[in-house]
Parts: sequence; structure tokens; C-alpha cells
Amino acid sequence: MKGASGRGEEEEGSCCTADMRASSQLLPDVSATVRGLQSIFQEQEMTENVHDSEGHGYLATFLGKNGRFAILRMHSHGLVTFDLQCLEGDDVVQVDNLLNALEKKLKALLDGKIQRIKRLPVLIRGGDVDRYWPTADGRLMEYDIDEVVYEKDSAYQNIKILHSRQFGNMLILNGDVNLAESDLPYTQAIMGSGKEHYGGKEVLILGGGDGGILHEAVKLKPKMITMVEIDELVIDGCRKHMRKTCGNVLDNLKGDCYEILVQDCVPVLKKFAEQGRTFDYVINDLTAVPISTAPEEDSTWEFLRLILDLSIRVLRPGGKYFTQGNCVNLTDALCEYEKLLCRLSCKVDFSKEVVCVPSYMELWVFYTIWKK
Amino acid sequence: MKGASGRGEEEEGSCCTADMRASSQLLPDVSATVRGLQSIFQEQEMTENVHDSEGHGYLATFLGKNGRFAILRMHSHGLVTFDLQCLEGDDVVQVDNLLNALEKKLKALLDGKIQRIKRLPVLIRGGDVDRYWPTADGRLMEYDIDEVVYEKDSAYQNIKILHSRQFGNMLILNGDVNLAESDLPYTQAIMGSGKEHYGGKEVLILGGGDGGILHEAVKLKPKMITMVEIDELVIDGCRKHMRKTCGNVLDNLKGDCYEILVQDCVPVLKKFAEQGRTFDYVINDLTAVPISTAPEEDSTWEFLRLILDLSIRVLRPGGKYFTQGNCVNLTDALCEYEKLLCRLSCKVDFSKEVVCVPSYMELWVFYTIWKK
Repeated sequence: MKGASGRGEEEEGSCCTADMRASSQLLPDVSATVRGLQSIFQEQEMTENVHDSEGHGYLATFLGKNGRFAILRMHSHGLVTFDLQCLEGDDVVQVDNLLNALEKKLKALLDGKIQRIKRLPVLIRGGDVDRYWPTADGRLMEYDIDEVVYEKDSAYQNIKILHSRQFGNMLILNGDVNLAESDLPYTQAIMGSGKEHYGGKEVLILGGGDGGILHEAVKLKPKMITMVEIDELVIDGCRKHMRKTCGNVLDNLKGDCYEILVQDCVPVLKKFAEQGRTFDYVINDLTAVPISTAPEEDSTWEFLRLILDLSIRVLRPGGKYFTQGNCVNLTDALCEYEKLLCRLSCKVDFSKEVVCVPSYMELWVFYTIWKK
Repeated sequence: MKGASGRGEEEEGSCCTADMRASSQLLPDVSATVRGLQSIFQEQEMTENVHDSEGHGYLATFLGKNGRFAILRMHSHGLVTFDLQCLEGDDVVQVDNLLNALEKKLKALLDGKIQRIKRLPVLIRGGDVDRYWPTADGRLMEYDIDEVVYEKDSAYQNIKILHSRQFGNMLILNGDVNLAESDLPYTQAIMGSGKEHYGGKEVLILGGGDGGILHEAVKLKPKMITMVEIDELVIDGCRKHMRKTCGNVLDNLKGDCYEILVQDCVPVLKKFAEQGRTFDYVINDLTAVPISTAPEEDSTWEFLRLILDLSIRVLRPGGKYFTQGNCVNLTDALCEYEKLLCRLSCKVDFSKEVVCVPSYMELWVFYTIWKK
């Protein structure tokens, strides 16, 4: 069983929040509670400014030294919220003391009536390094990022490689965490979770610019791997900064058993289909992910369908198509994707697997698809 | 490569924050920027209140309908922060529109000078379900928790079992995420990661009230497992609500090859040591974790040392002691723990492994220790 600790750092434009939830019978005496807290703000030389909330409880702001600014609200149903904004370089100990003093005083004033006290970690705002990268289902996650390693805008997307203390370098495309050096489980899952025999096979990778799949596939001695990645800058960044993921496979666009085409995969797939060229494995590692659940309104679904149809066309009988699906919580989008699979021009079956990818902070669904 | 989506829900006392960071040469014209934004607040019928920040940039609050309250700051170094507090039941679309309008307007006003725009997911405050459980190294994490399944205060700790949509039921002791039904990797790691042969062996589990280790160990046909858990209410809660973790092993305190002692493990260990009773495997699954790095000030370290010393005493020659260590980022605490290992009365060697435990949202270090 694990345990916990605390942390003390704060940065420019940081913001602490603390909430307290009390049973609702306490609040008749808001004014007594407010009076009880005033001594604390006075000690901190913070000036109170009460706002007329028009019947939505007590609402006051407090302005202090060094640009400190606090918001205190007491809601009629018993929720007390306190927010404190501090600037970079503020005295962390003083700020902590203020929060501690407030918590202690409120506990004393509302003796026995408090259901829950919660103090959230500091939100660091406007820092050199952005630590907040939400999950695909929109939840707030704070990463242990301490360095911007690479940042470029390509013709296709914003590319960031950020260093996480525990996950290593992380590739972030248009704000979405794509892959970190810790994420071998992603690569293993999208290659069939070790259940496939790549030896002597022909493999097509769509996307995959971080080089992770190519790196792992090369080790399995296939006959030939063709990788089609549209964005040269992703390859460039990952070749330099994601070596744990890609090894040396991105150092050259051609190797003993692989070739990287820096091209849009759609015309390439069309050409392969026309030529009758086929593969044992097609691995779709493109960024496009179905997030809408209204397919008729969203061309993402049409794009997905196009890629799927073309991929199945270049898949040999007995071959397999692998792709990542979505976060396990986005059940509507997953369901829509599975419906799409049932409507392909070529009949397919599929299986799925839920995988924990370390840097994702959420479980992810992977699909294996094959011709019926 | 994964992709993203958004979400729209908000709850009582929710709070959106949006930051914008611009190059610092923009800010001479704060007043023009402020004037440019005023039409948006007027449209939303929000009343401006400018505060004297005493030289720390522009600071204004805006009070609107339904208890809406916003804080806008423009710092002299180019950071613009905007916070919006809304009450439960507020019109989510309206709130989103306000944020979108502000973002659009600021982009127009600061044309080309914006380095970064970041809008964070809503912080839900005072909800029935608390979704925020920081990592051991103090980072903010929002879980997909949708139900409080069990909550009790025992003589030893606050016990919560919360339901996570993706991780299943999660045991939280004194505010620390301990184990979720998704966390078989934790149990496997603390049992030696599948490299040990438990068949016919004698096993001692310290703590382990969630039943995860016992459940897995029983399957391996050991001669006898003795588990010593102090908190009956943890066992009760997990027996009912963590069935994926414990199976049926907590239904009775005695089974074919195991016995659960609901006792403090220290006197039990002392008794075993006095009796000369020994084990092939000792698995320390207690909650106490070294979080301080000043051992002389913290009795946690003395407790850890006591447990370690006693455990090594009851360990057979060739036996192994397993324990979880700490979050991989708390390097000082890990280092202190390893120093402690070097100072035990009996000389030991150790190895460690870093493991991704799904519900932890951070990598965790596990130790294997044996007599030299």
C-alpha cells in the first residue's frame, strides 16, 4: 500500500485552492464565521472587499502584499471555497501558514460540522514549462515535466517533446500526449501484444513517426517494413530526442529490412491497392482518433473509414490490422468505431484489448481486425 | 498515437481557469486590452471591479448572474490569467461561450504576440464525489470517480472505497490511493514479479487488508500463508467491494492454506522471532511509507527499521522480503530507505524494480531484499 508526501514549490501566477464542505445547518451564522476569519487576514495585512453576490452567499476578495489575492466564498448549501493567487517568488512558507491558519480557524469555528476539507496542490500558471495535459476524456492531469526539449510547428501540427522526470521524453502533438519513452506497452499492444510472428513477414506502418513500432518490429526480423509518415519534423524530433523509443531506426530512411516514406499515407495506400500489393500486418498508428459520436457531422469518421477500407484492401488473407482505438471511458466513440467496422465494404471481425500505457494516465483500447 | 476530446459537465462551485502568455513587449497597452475586453463582460452582464494591486499589474473581478464570479489579471511580464467561478446548475454553454469569446478577443487584441494559450479543465469543487487525489509527489490528478462505495473511520484511519470508471473500485486510506481493482501489477510486483516459486512455501504478509496478495498467493499452492492486518474495517470494506482484487479469500479468516490475524504486526513479528518461527517469503504491504528525508526527526523511519529488522529475523536463509518503496520521483526518500537497508543489524542485499500501477498515475519502486 502506497503512501503520500507533500510539496512546497510554487511559481509565477500560482493558485492554491481549498474547499470545505459542511452540513448545511451551519451557515445561518455566516457573519460570525466571517468575523472569526478576519483576524487572520488582518495579520497577513490583506484588505477585505465584500462583493454583492445577489443572493448567492458570502463573497469577498482580499488583497495582500506582493500581489497576493484571495477569494473566499461561503455558499448557502454549506460549501466554503478559498482561492489564493500568488506571484512568482512569493514566500512559500508564509502562504502555507496562511492556508494552515485558515483551515485551523474554520475547523474551530465550525466545530464538528465539517464533512470534508480538501486542499488541492498548487496550480502553476504561465510557467516556462506547461505541466498540465488533460486526458482524452478531459480530466486534469499534472505531469512531472521539467524541460521543453523540442518544439516546432510543422505544416501539419504543433510538435512538442517535453521531458517528464519519470516517463522520459514525451511526444505531444497538437496538445495530445502521443508517446513517452516509458511507453513500450503502447508499442507492444499495437503490434499484437507479442502473440504474432513477424519473422519473414511484410509489414505496413501508417504514421508511427516516433519510430517506436519500427524499432520493435525490426528486431523481429520481418522480410520488409514499409512505414509511411507524413511529418518529417516528427521524425526529426524523435530521432534526436526519443532514442529510447526509436533506437537508431530513424537515422536513415532505409535500412536492411525497412523503408520510411515521408508521404501522406492515403495516396500511398491507394497506389498499393491499385498495384495489388499486400501485407501480412498493417499497423495504423495515425493520430486521427474518432472523438465525435455524430459520424454524419464529422469527417474524422469518413477519414477513418477510408483508411480502414484501404488498409483491409492491402491486407493479405490471414493478415492482421492493428490500431489504437480510444480512451476506455469514451464508450460512445468506441461504440461508433465498432459500428463503422461492421459497415466496411469488406466483412471483418475484430478483438480488443485494454492496456495501461504509462504516460497516458488513462487506460487505452487497442483493436485487432481481420478479414472474415 | 492517441488523440483528444473535450467535456462539458460542470458542478457546484466549479472553476475554469485560462492562461495566456504573451511576449512582454505587449503589455504597455494594458488599458487598451482591458477596454477591448469590456464589451464581452457587458454582454454577459458582468460588473467590473478594479482592484489596486499596488504595482502588480492589472487586477479586476467581475460579478455576473447566477453567482458567476471572474478574476482577470494582467501581469507586467506578459501573463494574463482568467478564472471563472460558477455555481451548480449554471448554463454550461453560456459559460463556454464567455471563455471562447474572451479567448478570441484576446487573440485579436494581442495579434501575433501570444506565446501560449492554455485553458484547463473545470475544477469541480464540493461535489458529492471527490475526484482529486494527488500523487505521492504532490501533483494534481483528477480521477474518473463517479461513486462513493464505502466510507468509514476506523480506529486507525479513514477508509474510502471509491468507484473509478476505468480502474474499478479504489481503496483510499487517509487520502492516499492504495489499490484499485485494476492494479494486479502492484500485487504481482510485491510478490516478486512472477519469478518466485511459492508452491509448498511458508509466506508472511504484513498488512495486505485488501486481500490482493493473499488471493494471488493462494493460487500458487503454498504450504501456509499468515497474514497480519491490523484494521478489520479495511478487510470488511474490501471483502464487500474489492472482489476483483480479493476474490473470496477474505470471506473467512482461515482457509485451507492461510490464516488472517487481525492484529498489529509488530508484537506478532516479535513473538515469531522469539519462537524462532521463520518464513520463505515476507511481504510487507503496510501503508507506512518513508516520505521524510530527515530520518532523525521522523519516527516513520524508526518504524520502518523496526519492521525490517524483525522481518529479516523471521526470514529463512535463502528467503526473500518484498516491499513497495515509493514513487520513483521521490529520489531522496528512496535513497534514505536504501541507506537504512545498509544499516540493518543483519547484512542484506537488495534489488529494485520500477512498475506502472494503473491507478497510481505515477511509477512506483518495489524492493526485493535478502540476507547476504
